[in-house]
Amino acid sequence: MSIYLDHAATTPIREVALRELVDKARMLNPGGQYASGRAARRVLDDAREKVAFLLGADPAEVIFTASGTESDNIAVQGLYFASENNRVVSTPVEHSAVKDTVSQLPGAQIDLMPVDSTGHINDVSAVETPAALACCMWANNETGAVQPIAQIAQKAADSGTPVHIDAVQVVGKFPIDFHELGITTLAASAHKFGGPRGVGILLARRSPAPKAIIHGGGQERALRPGTVNVAGAAALAAALEESLAEHEVENARQARLRDELRDDIVHQIPDVVVHTQEPALPSHLHLSFPGAAGDSLIMLLDAAGVEASTGSACSQGVNRASHVLEAMGVATDTARGALRLTLGRTTTENDIRTVSEILPRIVEQARHAGLS
Amino acid sequence: MSIYLDHAATTPIREVALRELVDKARMLNPGGQYASGRAARRVLDDAREKVAFLLGADPAEVIFTASGTESDNIAVQGLYFASENNRVVSTPVEHSAVKDTVSQLPGAQIDLMPVDSTGHINDVSAVETPAALACCMWANNETGAVQPIAQIAQKAADSGTPVHIDAVQVVGKFPIDFHELGITTLAASAHKFGGPRGVGILLARRSPAPKAIIHGGGQERALRPGTVNVAGAAALAAALEESLAEHEVENARQARLRDELRDDIVHQIPDVVVHTQEPALPSHLHLSFPGAAGDSLIMLLDAAGVEASTGSACSQGVNRASHVLEAMGVATDTARGALRLTLGRTTTENDIRTVSEILPRIVEQARHAGLS
Repeated sequence: MSIYLDHAATTPIREVALRELVDKARMLNPGGQYASGRAARRVLDDAREKVAFLLGADPAEVIFTASGTESDNIAVQGLYFASENNRVVSTPVEHSAVKDTVSQLPGAQIDLMPVDSTGHINDVSAVETPAALACCMWANNETGAVQPIAQIAQKAADSGTPVHIDAVQVVGKFPIDFHELGITTLAASAHKFGGPRGVGILLARRSPAPKAIIHGGGQERALRPGTVNVAGAAALAAALEESLAEHEVENARQARLRDELRDDIVHQIPDVVVHTQEPALPSHLHLSFPGAAGDSLIMLLDAAGVEASTGSACSQGVNRASHVLEAMGVATDTARGALRLTLGRTTTENDIRTVSEILPRIVEQARHAGLS
Repeated sequence: MSIYLDHAATTPIREVALRELVDKARMLNPGGQYASGRAARRVLDDAREKVAFLLGADPAEVIFTASGTESDNIAVQGLYFASENNRVVSTPVEHSAVKDTVSQLPGAQIDLMPVDSTGHINDVSAVETPAALACCMWANNETGAVQPIAQIAQKAADSGTPVHIDAVQVVGKFPIDFHELGITTLAASAHKFGGPRGVGILLARRSPAPKAIIHGGGQERALRPGTVNVAGAAALAAALEESLAEHEVENARQARLRDELRDDIVHQIPDVVVHTQEPALPSHLHLSFPGAAGDSLIMLLDAAGVEASTGSACSQGVNRASHVLEAMGVATDTARGALRLTLGRTTTENDIRTVSEILPRIVEQARHAGLS
């Protein structure tokens, strides 16, 4: 049995979510004007109301999508195309779902809020000037750095700029109040908090509303048309509920294990650079071992039964220097030796001890192999 | 237990698909460079190869999406934005996933191939002039009319026009050979052939390739980024395999039941208009009862335990006259009395007898209530 330390990429499905998925898999079309349609609609409405309640939104503001990536695209493209303004505020550390979407917006003038060496946004003045939208992640997928979202939302409100928050790494881990935040849209993904893969959430205020980028049968406020995946929505809602119910205990537990692991590594291995700095998610430990190649570390860890990633690409077989570390001013050779260990609810004390024990030898081997 | 005759909207999940969904629900990230990632990737590759084999495509041409609507949007928008040409050929009887997508293409000059009174395209000359794309459904979701796709593909090939086929109503019901057809892209949806809701297929040739409309981590040839729903893909593949294995027997059975139902209705009920004309899907029976309102028919049938639709909207609570019947030249009052009965693998001889028995009284009641 492997030790899985890539929970920020995806996390195992919760039993409660799997049960919902199976239990509701026979549900038919919630758009049907007949008994089985109404039954499916009730399940969908219940899931929507549960998600709305848990995230501080109105049920009408909950749009079920197929992924966090899709939610980000609907919000970023949709808010841009809904605006007369062509200015877009973002950051240099976004996930590709936002970064690549922003960079493809036709005619956009993009202003990036800078980050410091810890990966935190340290100048939010760009949102003081009106823009089509400001889009920013709540917590970074690589380092776990938590951004000053409330401050950004406040200043954006003053300048009348709609705000999209990519909360994919945060939803399910911390309580969220969509209305209190005062933001326009928010993206989340079920499989990051124990829901099934293939289901996401977009929270979207009625006004300003994103312009639809996908067209069809008008489902989900016409922002995400197509027969709704009722079982997926129900499973997502169940996972979110359980996830939030245990978040305090779980966050404290993960922070303790993560800190233990970090301290062990820093004490045992020379020349380690810790990229994860507070405020950060308790699940994340992003490091660099200069002189080693991240890919070698991953491969050697895998051979030793430990599953981790470099953190710099969530897609298969893509290896490039992390734009996040680059934005933090990390030297290229250091960035190339990156290793992201992300904990989750299945991570045990024993997992952490094992990794502490084997990592020194693995880093030595990887450094011996070098950066070639 | 209701009699379900809305299989063209969605059809119950097959046991083999549900088993795959459950069996593969714990699969993690197929992009992970470690044991569990490779295991997920193998399942995904197997699903992709099975779909490719069953549909006459290369595995690299199979893109897993979240719905037929999404597949249509990626193809139609993607081929349009990939082209220098701004001419688009389509038909007046498309599903909203194609119709509304085409109508939103910026700067597009749209040429519609006309249909005759049976809903079949009767003039394909529009594809003889080069266009960014020609997009057309293989079989109509309302009437079941099967279109002359091979002829369109041939003429489009001669003019160098890429062709997108919305095969949502056809895949799983008839053998398809993507390469032999010589088309560019094809859309399908798992839940139409007994797969789960929330999973779709886009078949897409390498060239001309659609331009991505959603941006992110590069998965699925960067046409459909986001962590892949491996369990959904496996369930789709299993449903497609079973569906095609039984298609001949099942099509013959459904055609017999459908014909029996049609003949019973025509003999028993005065002034019925049969919209479904050959060549058509064996599952479809689309009719009008002039003087009755489609919504009344649906409501009365529902009260009698029969689930059907008017066929004109697949989204919740939307009631408008069918653009398909309008394009066929059906008078508005006749179109308003439309009823779509669509059969599936769970439909029994008894279901059909029951509907034959109760429908005359229901049409009478609906006609008595009138069109108000």
